[in-house]
Amino acid sequence: MSLATGKCIPCRKGDPALTDADVSGLLSQVPGWALIEVEGIKRLERVFKLKNYAEAVALTNKIAAIAEEEDHHPLIVLEWGRVTVHWWTHVVKGLHKNDFIMAARTDGLFGE
Amino acid sequence: MSLATGKCIPCRKGDPALTDADVSGLLSQVPGWALIEVEGIKRLERVFKLKNYAEAVALTNKIAAIAEEEDHHPLIVLEWGRVTVHWWTHVVKGLHKNDFIMAARTDGLFGE
Repeated sequence: MSLATGKCIPCRKGDPALTDADVSGLLSQVPGWALIEVEGIKRLERVFKLKNYAEAVALTNKIAAIAEEEDHHPLIVLEWGRVTVHWWTHVVKGLHKNDFIMAARTDGLFGE
Repeated sequence: MSLATGKCIPCRKGDPALTDADVSGLLSQVPGWALIEVEGIKRLERVFKLKNYAEAVALTNKIAAIAEEEDHHPLIVLEWGRVTVHWWTHVVKGLHKNDFIMAARTDGLFGE
């Protein structure tokens, strides 16, 4: 099953973050996403370039809709012609498979 | 005239940024906004706390609407229950009175 058609699986406090090996494997399935670290916590980051502000706002709202649907909320930076997205999982203090699923689904929204 | 009822005035490349004295004076009219500096460029920043994600998305869209209306676009960071806004003016490489007008209008949207 591809990541892009995945659904988030419930994750609980105490669940472990993905190992570095797991992260490497999954990262290759979401080209365009970079592995970054903010205050010691790993995140997935991608910058989407759009034609104008309206398109950036529209993408932000599409991402917000899947975030609510899955109850998994990214950080989104909305600027003119540009949307930056960070996915990570607070309760595991790092990356969960859900973040890769959501990254792949975000790519799908961008391509719509 | 209060800032909150102001409209952006057209500003052009080559217009000067506000002086520190002007910034101090205007800053006192938008309590809640902090003066920050990013890569040597002054910006106004405020973090708005919301009850949930839907309210944060709604505020983001309201801000986006006035940004398009005035053709002056901030940086907005959308997270669960939290919206961070930065206003500054690219062409003056710093703060313009427009940024204070938009900050005051953003406060009005939050209070709606």
